[in-house]
Order: sequence, then structure tokens, then C-alpha cells
Amino acid sequence: MNREILLNMGKAIDLIKESSNIFIASHINPDGDNIGSSLALALALKKINKNIVVLKSDIIPIDFTFLPGINLIKEYDDKLDDIDLFITLDCGDINRLGQNKILFENAKKTINIDHHISNTNFGDINIVDSKVTATGELIYYFIKQMEIEIDKDIATNIYTAISTDTGSFKYESVSSDTHRIIADLLDIGIDKSDININLYENMSFTRMKLFIKSLTTLETFNNGKIAVIEVTQEMLKETGASLEDSEGIVSFIKKLSTVEAACILKELEKEDIKISLRTKKYLDASYICNKFDGGGHKRAAGCTIYKGIKEAKELIVKSIQEAMKV
Amino acid sequence: MNREILLNMGKAIDLIKESSNIFIASHINPDGDNIGSSLALALALKKINKNIVVLKSDIIPIDFTFLPGINLIKEYDDKLDDIDLFITLDCGDINRLGQNKILFENAKKTINIDHHISNTNFGDINIVDSKVTATGELIYYFIKQMEIEIDKDIATNIYTAISTDTGSFKYESVSSDTHRIIADLLDIGIDKSDININLYENMSFTRMKLFIKSLTTLETFNNGKIAVIEVTQEMLKETGASLEDSEGIVSFIKKLSTVEAACILKELEKEDIKISLRTKKYLDASYICNKFDGGGHKRAAGCTIYKGIKEAKELIVKSIQEAMKV
Repeated sequence: MNREILLNMGKAIDLIKESSNIFIASHINPDGDNIGSSLALALALKKINKNIVVLKSDIIPIDFTFLPGINLIKEYDDKLDDIDLFITLDCGDINRLGQNKILFENAKKTINIDHHISNTNFGDINIVDSKVTATGELIYYFIKQMEIEIDKDIATNIYTAISTDTGSFKYESVSSDTHRIIADLLDIGIDKSDININLYENMSFTRMKLFIKSLTTLETFNNGKIAVIEVTQEMLKETGASLEDSEGIVSFIKKLSTVEAACILKELEKEDIKISLRTKKYLDASYICNKFDGGGHKRAAGCTIYKGIKEAKELIVKSIQEAMKV
Repeated sequence: MNREILLNMGKAIDLIKESSNIFIASHINPDGDNIGSSLALALALKKINKNIVVLKSDIIPIDFTFLPGINLIKEYDDKLDDIDLFITLDCGDINRLGQNKILFENAKKTINIDHHISNTNFGDINIVDSKVTATGELIYYFIKQMEIEIDKDIATNIYTAISTDTGSFKYESVSSDTHRIIADLLDIGIDKSDININLYENMSFTRMKLFIKSLTTLETFNNGKIAVIEVTQEMLKETGASLEDSEGIVSFIKKLSTVEAACILKELEKEDIKISLRTKKYLDASYICNKFDGGGHKRAAGCTIYKGIKEAKELIVKSIQEAMKV
């Protein structure tokens, strides 16, 4: 971490010391880094006797309900006020807070802790480091800096944050420091086996059925460089699954050796197709999705095409093919 | 590592110093730990000017052909002799060497390096530690002990050995030391992204087709506690895949939240069904497979049933159900 980040951590710690009622919130469509980081920080601040509210921003995926401290998460309530300090985690910009944005704006002071390169520094204090692989890494250093002991419950949440944001320590952004943090968490005595079963072997039967059904729609283009699958409303009806259950299918088809671009088309409505695009080595996924007013990262992006699923598929495949030519 | 292992490492190093022609071999049905450990040790010993032969024990899965030093692996040749030292890696007993067993028996001296709890200590010197998660960990310590510098090529092989033997650092046996070794390997500057694409995103199209076809045969028993899938000769014909391509399917159905036992039946011939069994939390897979003269570990075991696939399925499911009652 550079000097500026360390300095900002110092300022943030002073602010926390002065504050009694502290609110914590993260982005909509919560993932493991979001929830793990929020609960880790909440549990740590409770240890120094702060009044902590963790705000729910969205439905919590069932995979994360095993996390220690999950009951600290509170439903949104616009009567909530007297917010001394509002800490946002893993949010690139203020709009990612969803309905909690109003509470953020009502807070006396704000801290923004994040690892997105696009972060807009919207807090009074900003602890932003795009070099770390997960916000959970920043939370680890931050709790250490506060000299609060990381116990098993806090460690379980940080492990979850980092593991889920790195595909179990596989992604490009994982560093030797990431592994040293994990080593430290294991020494604290977390039940790694139980955590990993909860995170990676906890698929519902309906989700498995959707997975299989969707895989049978696999189509490839350009000698297998492009792979496309569908999830239609009919499949959801047949399997009893929801659209959220399609999480992970696109990563699965990206496993194909020939694939550079893997793409899933999700039929929200007849002419409302949500697209998730993943790329492997060189294609810029966000560049392709930008053309349809979407966005994201280089290797993972999304957009919506307001056409029937067949036409949407033709359009996105054409766009990928054009990007490949450049 | 305990004192005995360290002492044996010292003795092994003396033996290596005295030897010129050193043969290295691992078990049949090679996996990442097998090949990664073999190549890491071979590359290290070449740096101190030893004549090294890495013996091929079986077909090398295409996933590992990217590994640095892969060309050091030589076809079996019974004219090979003048073996000063034969080092076996990741072999629980001498029969796991397959055809290379004869050469082992002809060697002047032998070293056995392994992490299987069942290891029979069949070498002149035995470096066996069942506490480490992969033989690759032992090779890391061994090379360090020899004071040979771990370069990028050696590190790539050790990373592969450990990552593949731990499901990317998820398994029970992973320790904080495992993560500290990986941190050290990353500091050496390996291309982690490239390695992970080669290991985990390198599936052939025929294998993907077999995967999908096999998944559609998913059946569950005992309220989803038991999940069973099939791979038949007909599916292999239809998809153009081979039996080896079924690797990984059983782990996939183990992801189901309800599953304690996941099982794949592979039809080698009409009345020759190879079974792989994986368990999640409490069932002893090797106990169940022992009943059919098979064996393995607590959470992963296998056996063969010489019946038609339908009858084999009934028999194995019944056996799992009985074990569940105990």
C-alpha cells in the first residue's frame, strides 16, 4: 500500500473513534466480497463497542447466509437516521448503493473503501486501492491498522471476500500478499473446509437443472472462439429456477480451450435480453458491451439488448466478431 | 516437518551428490502433482549438472503439456540401465510405478518422496509426510534444502502440483504453509494467469459435449443425498470423447447442496463398470468401495463392478444407502 492510502486509513480510524452510530453498506447485487467485507468490518467495530448497522442493499444470495454476523444486516428503513458515519465498501460510485444512497447523503461523515479502478472518490475519506484483488484485503489491513484482533468470525468473512472475488485464488490480480493474508487467516483457525463447501458445493437442485438445460443450448462461432448459451423464460418455468440461478454458467463455458469470448443471453422479457460477456486473454469485454450502452471490466462486462433473443444473439456475436478483427 | 523427515532429506541430498545418472518416475494415471513434482525436481537437479531421465508412466493428459521441462519426459525403454539413483514421487506403493517398477528394482539406490498416508516406505530413503497437501510441497522444501535456486520454470511446476492437488487451494489438507509457499512462488514471477488458463480453461469441445450429455443422466436418491451420473460407450461414440474426458464430472454434481455422495458409473464394456465415488462431509468412500474390492481415500474412492450398468447402479446406490444408515 502506498503512503496516501496509509494516511487515509489513519484519518478514517480517527473518524471511527469519534463516531458512535456507524452505518455500513455495499453495492446492489451483492457478492461475496461485498457481504464478507461488510460483516468483517461490522464485527470488528462491534468489538470496540460501536453501534453498527449493516444496511441491506438487495436480496442476499443463499450461498452467503452461513456467514458469521449475517443477522447484523438490516432491512432498509428511511426512518433510520442519526448517522455519525457511513462507510461504503466495494462501491465504485455512489449510485451502486441503490436505495441506501439517501442515507449516505444524510450521514454526517462518510468513508469509501474500495478496490475498483473506476472509483470516483465520493467519500469524505477515500481508501481506494485498485491493486488489491478484493475489498476484503483492504479490510484485513484496515482492521490490523486499528489494532483490533481478527477472530475466527472476522477471518471467515475476510476469507470468503477474497476467495469469491478471485475464483478461489486464480485471477490475474491475486498477489503474493493475497496468499500471505490467507495464510494468516488459516492460522487463526477458520474452518476452511466448511467455508468452501458453503461457497462452492451448495447448489440447489433447481439451479443444477437450469445449468444443465442452459448448457444444452451451447453454440459456437469462429472455430470455437466464441461460445454462446441461452437462458429463456421457458427454461425458468420448466426448471423452477430464477434468473439469479444462471450465475456461473458463462464461466463454465469459458473453460473451453478454443474460447476467447463466452456469452450468456438471459431473457428477462420477450424483447429484453440481458447479456453477460466474459473474455479470456485479449478481447476487451467492456468495449464490446459499451456499444449496447453496457459496461464493466476488460474480462467481464454486460449489457441489455431490447430485441428478441435470436436477434440479440446475432447482434452480440456480430459485435464480438468485429472486435476480433481489430 | 518433523526431525525424521529433515534427517532423511539430508541423507537424500548426500545420495544425490554421489550419483550421476538419476531417474525420476511417478505413478500411472498421471495428475498435476505427479507431473509438476517430477519436472520441478528434474529441472532443479539439472541445475547441479546431473544426468536426469524422467520416465513416462502413462499417457500425459493434454492439460499438462504446457509445463516447462515437459520434453524431459522419456518413453519407457527396457534398455535403459546404469541407474545410480531412482527417485519415485507421489507413489504410495511400488506397484503404482507400472512398467517402470523393473527399472526401479534395477537401480543401485532409491528415494521415495510422497504424501500418501498409506505409503509403504519402499525406498532406501523415504521422505514421506502425509500432513502436506501435495508432493509438490515436499519438493519445494527439498529444493530449498539443497540450496538450488527456484527459478520461474521450477516454480511453475510446483504451483501446478499444489494447485491441482488442492482444487485450487480449497481442500481440507491445505495449510497456512501451503499459502506461504504459493506466495513465494508468485514472488519469483510465474505467469499465474497463463498457468490457470492452461489448467482450468483448456477443455476440449468433445469433452464439453460428453460433460453435458453425462449431466443429463443425473439421478438422485434419498432426498438428494446421493447423486449418480453415467458415461456409456454410446455417449463416447456420439461425442467422440474418450473415457478420460469424464474427469471432473463427478466433482461437478457434488456441488449440489443436498449431496453427501456423488457417483459416476463409467461403462468400459457391457459388464465392466468403473465407479468413482466422492463424499462431502462424513461418509467414508473407501469403506463403500472396499466392498467391491476397490479402495482409495475417505472422500474419494473407486471400484469396478462386473455387471451391466443398470445393475451396477443399483448395487452401488444400495451400498451407499447402507453406509448412510450406520
